[in-house]
Amino acid sequence: MNKLGLHAFVWTAGWNADDATRAIGRTAELGFDLIEASAMDYAAFDVAATRRALEANRIGITMSFGLTDDMDVSSGDPGRVAHGERHLLDGISLARDVGATHVCGILYSAFRKYDTPPTQDGIAGSVEVVRRVAEKAQASGITLGMEVVNRYESNVLNTARQAVRFCDRVGMPNVKVHLDCYHMNIEEADIAAAITQTGDRLGYFHTGDSHRGYLGSGSIDFGCVFRALVASGYAGPITFESFSSAVVGQPLEGILGIWRTLWDDSRDLAAHAKLFTDAHLHAARQAWRHVPDAIDPD
Amino acid sequence: MNKLGLHAFVWTAGWNADDATRAIGRTAELGFDLIEASAMDYAAFDVAATRRALEANRIGITMSFGLTDDMDVSSGDPGRVAHGERHLLDGISLARDVGATHVCGILYSAFRKYDTPPTQDGIAGSVEVVRRVAEKAQASGITLGMEVVNRYESNVLNTARQAVRFCDRVGMPNVKVHLDCYHMNIEEADIAAAITQTGDRLGYFHTGDSHRGYLGSGSIDFGCVFRALVASGYAGPITFESFSSAVVGQPLEGILGIWRTLWDDSRDLAAHAKLFTDAHLHAARQAWRHVPDAIDPD
Amino acid sequence: MNKLGLHAFVWTAGWNADDATRAIGRTAELGFDLIEASAMDYAAFDVAATRRALEANRIGITMSFGLTDDMDVSSGDPGRVAHGERHLLDGISLARDVGATHVCGILYSAFRKYDTPPTQDGIAGSVEVVRRVAEKAQASGITLGMEVVNRYESNVLNTARQAVRFCDRVGMPNVKVHLDCYHMNIEEADIAAAITQTGDRLGYFHTGDSHRGYLGSGSIDFGCVFRALVASGYAGPITFESFSSAVVGQPLEGILGIWRTLWDDSRDLAAHAKLFTDAHLHAARQAWRHVPDAIDPD
Amino acid sequence: MNKLGLHAFVWTAGWNADDATRAIGRTAELGFDLIEASAMDYAAFDVAATRRALEANRIGITMSFGLTDDMDVSSGDPGRVAHGERHLLDGISLARDVGATHVCGILYSAFRKYDTPPTQDGIAGSVEVVRRVAEKAQASGITLGMEVVNRYESNVLNTARQAVRFCDRVGMPNVKVHLDCYHMNIEEADIAAAITQTGDRLGYFHTGDSHRGYLGSGSIDFGCVFRALVASGYAGPITFESFSSAVVGQPLEGILGIWRTLWDDSRDLAAHAKLFTDAHLHAARQAWRHVPDAIDPD
Repeated sequence: MNKLGLHAFVWTAGWNADDATRAIGRTAELGFDLIEASAMDYAAFDVAATRRALEANRIGITMSFGLTDDMDVSSGDPGRVAHGERHLLDGISLARDVGATHVCGILYSAFRKYDTPPTQDGIAGSVEVVRRVAEKAQASGITLGMEVVNRYESNVLNTARQAVRFCDRVGMPNVKVHLDCYHMNIEEADIAAAITQTGDRLGYFHTGDSHRGYLGSGSIDFGCVFRALVASGYAGPITFESFSSAVVGQPLEGILGIWRTLWDDSRDLAAHAKLFTDAHLHAARQAWRHVPDAIDPD
Repeated sequence: MNKLGLHAFVWTAGWNADDATRAIGRTAELGFDLIEASAMDYAAFDVAATRRALEANRIGITMSFGLTDDMDVSSGDPGRVAHGERHLLDGISLARDVGATHVCGILYSAFRKYDTPPTQDGIAGSVEVVRRVAEKAQASGITLGMEVVNRYESNVLNTARQAVRFCDRVGMPNVKVHLDCYHMNIEEADIAAAITQTGDRLGYFHTGDSHRGYLGSGSIDFGCVFRALVASGYAGPITFESFSSAVVGQPLEGILGIWRTLWDDSRDLAAHAKLFTDAHLHAARQAWRHVPDAIDPD
Repeated sequence: MNKLGLHAFVWTAGWNADDATRAIGRTAELGFDLIEASAMDYAAFDVAATRRALEANRIGITMSFGLTDDMDVSSGDPGRVAHGERHLLDGISLARDVGATHVCGILYSAFRKYDTPPTQDGIAGSVEVVRRVAEKAQASGITLGMEVVNRYESNVLNTARQAVRFCDRVGMPNVKVHLDCYHMNIEEADIAAAITQTGDRLGYFHTGDSHRGYLGSGSIDFGCVFRALVASGYAGPITFESFSSAVVGQPLEGILGIWRTLWDDSRDLAAHAKLFTDAHLHAARQAWRHVPDAIDPD
Repeated sequence: MNKLGLHAFVWTAGWNADDATRAIGRTAELGFDLIEASAMDYAAFDVAATRRALEANRIGITMSFGLTDDMDVSSGDPGRVAHGERHLLDGISLARDVGATHVCGILYSAFRKYDTPPTQDGIAGSVEVVRRVAEKAQASGITLGMEVVNRYESNVLNTARQAVRFCDRVGMPNVKVHLDCYHMNIEEADIAAAITQTGDRLGYFHTGDSHRGYLGSGSIDFGCVFRALVASGYAGPITFESFSSAVVGQPLEGILGIWRTLWDDSRDLAAHAKLFTDAHLHAARQAWRHVPDAIDPD
């Protein structure tokens, strides 16, 4: 059975002891099984408070990291690649310390609107870095998720098929594909087919509607999405991600391009995401359950 | 705000005192605002028990009726038309006695697979009957819903546009269009457009997925459906209808063509329908809410 | 590459020498690769004229047959089963004589709105009949397609999954699943998934929109349908089927429930179906073509 | 009847005499009614050759312009606003000289990934500029289309509703909303509803699939799109836009984020777009045509 998660940015962009305690408490209250925390500045991440709150509320944690331009492991520039690798390795230490099961996000390039396509050398370097980061993660039982994002957030992995081939090149069992509905809606030929074709390479999943607002308030057909997840036997985390300038403020609203405040009530948004996900996941399981009939009565 | 309803056939095909008490109690327990009861044999419908249970559970009721071939008000045959009219007028009496706000269903023809198209004379007769039934219904504050069904259940009203014109010909303010997702998925060019184009003529709405199983387990895109309902300002009942041979048995499974048992747990199905409807309705309302911005800050 | 076909009922419900010559000529003129002819009365089917017209126009033919209630091979009634088997075997002779590559349709039960579910004995008898018919067909290189239809046309095979299991029980290599968009839209949890899950068991495919009018004028998302066909490597016929009372008249309009005349210009409808199918099939092939990139440059 | 157009970037990013002659000739050959030319450097745009080719091939032209950061009319910075206004006014002169009927694109802000939301003062300034540009355009019978784009291309108009309000503030009859499927798929709650709700404010329309490749090879349901266009009575241009790094090269591939070469055969792509658009437009017109029946026989 899939664990259902909530991205911490629904509650807060910071992560001091108070942020962590409040975000984890509220996430657990709504019935989620895990919280996804995105650390940009590791030093500002309160590990002890996070562990305490997770234990008190009995939920799990996953983490997502990003790389700035000067840490771009796909750049082919030795200094930036090395900087990026250090940052990712430090991230794995942090993830291990808080007890995270998954580390995901754009771990293979910078998070930015690029101006030129990636180079073969750049990709080769990125593959090497991800492999070494995965080796460290493996020692702590952490799965890495290569998040497939739209063309405006990276120039490396924009489709599930690219991510499968990237993971093939990395060649580590704990490096999996991380798909996200919002990005798939822009880049994939067919969202459901992309999920099915990824198959058991899928390791992490983000829900989010076409404009990143309430689930079901945009143009993604979630019936198809959840039926594809269930049909392909996906048993990993399903985490809801949505951003509002009312919560995250700058610089995140600028980085993410949040120009309309699609929501301002975090609790209502998150409670609804839980309800919507439960409803569609149950429907998808019913869609594929065996119905005995006169042809095959058993 | 729309009242959410549940069709009684989710619980039972009968309606003695026990059936009524149990079905109404369980419907209320799950948070629905009303139950839709389909009476085929008025004499077997326990009015007193129904009223008691509705009052005890503080929910409302709507009713749906059908006409057999010998009651076909669209047949142009005076005897059958008169029989059908009496049956519908008796149905209004029953609906009034139990305090129903809406009477809906295929009130304008028989419920059957026809072999020939309707005639203009047959339609004219049907319009007259519905007008007289509506006059009686009006006296009790009852709205009639002309249910638009697929080609296999009637040859008269298969599209929303036909129903709007039929209601125009009837010319009574309490005669409205009753749309049902399951049927629309077969007959309409565009489900959402049909809802929008019906506009304020819409008086009753049935949810139900493409195969009449769990909501979201079939191929209807409910995001579109609920956004259209909210966009057109529909404020009437939204009632979930689903049939299983495990509950209704014969002759209903034969009439409806239920050859696969898509569900057998009434409570799970109904609880899910409530969850799914709440989730999509809330999403649809969020989709259209006003978001202030720098162009129109107020 | 898929051969594109057109159902002869777009032109005519009869099949004398003139009908055959005209229908085959026009089908070929529009660029179709084959015509599907539905023979109800074998004696009225002009074999010689059909062969001449096919040769003159250099297109192929497929056939579809149906069984009336007194030929119901799923009935469990020895007389009706035997009658149905004879009718099917005679149909195979006819198909062989005209050079048909495929024989499809509801070959496993009557074409009717049933009142009761099928029985295990009835199914067992149907499997036996289909096996013997398939043995005869095999000798002429004919593939049989078990058409999956909606609940109002048969009670036996309403989903692709049922058809796969039925074919398994028949156990002949030339017995395949025949899927039809119009029916899938009513019965399948997910049209694209049903195609993909049928995989190489798929042997024949009917396009047709939700209301059986112009392709694209109803609610089926044909982008998904064609992407699924291409993704699953389907290389068999794709045949367009649509019915209008303006062409077929009684008894077919009654049997099929055609109450609205969605089109009356056969040539325009058929030319459009060819255009629409070409456009979507080409798009679907582009959707899945290999795009070299920096991750996998070859 | 809608004029069908093709964006010139399908053929070339340049516009010297040869480019113009070739692009216009090929566009006309495929049966399009107009070409959309995007001029970035007006001096490099060969007006005389363009006029000659348009006349020789008897097709029309529309133009699209963009503003760089130093021309940002929404910036609130007087120098940049004035620069932008001069650039737009010069663009109108160019459009008039080539005989363009429409000038569209992001005419109200820079084309860039912004870091902060727009300000009310910035918007007010943009409205003033667009009004003056529209006055000049009006004198030459040119309609302006305010293109609604995704969050990564502007921070001002991301939804149809915003564009309607922006046009209201401009208050000129020749300032209309320009919608584009690719962008709507990211930003709108409901693509079809956005078209319908824009109604007669819609002045220009871009087709393009979710990933900007072949129409129908991505996840947009074009049945819905075309039915909405026809249902709302839209009679203006419908222009296909798609970009490949194989044609446009830098800097455009960088600006637009084209990291995968989704196509490299311009003629095949364009011929297919014409076929696909014709097929869907005809289907949509059939979807809404009046079908006489026994209810309303006239």
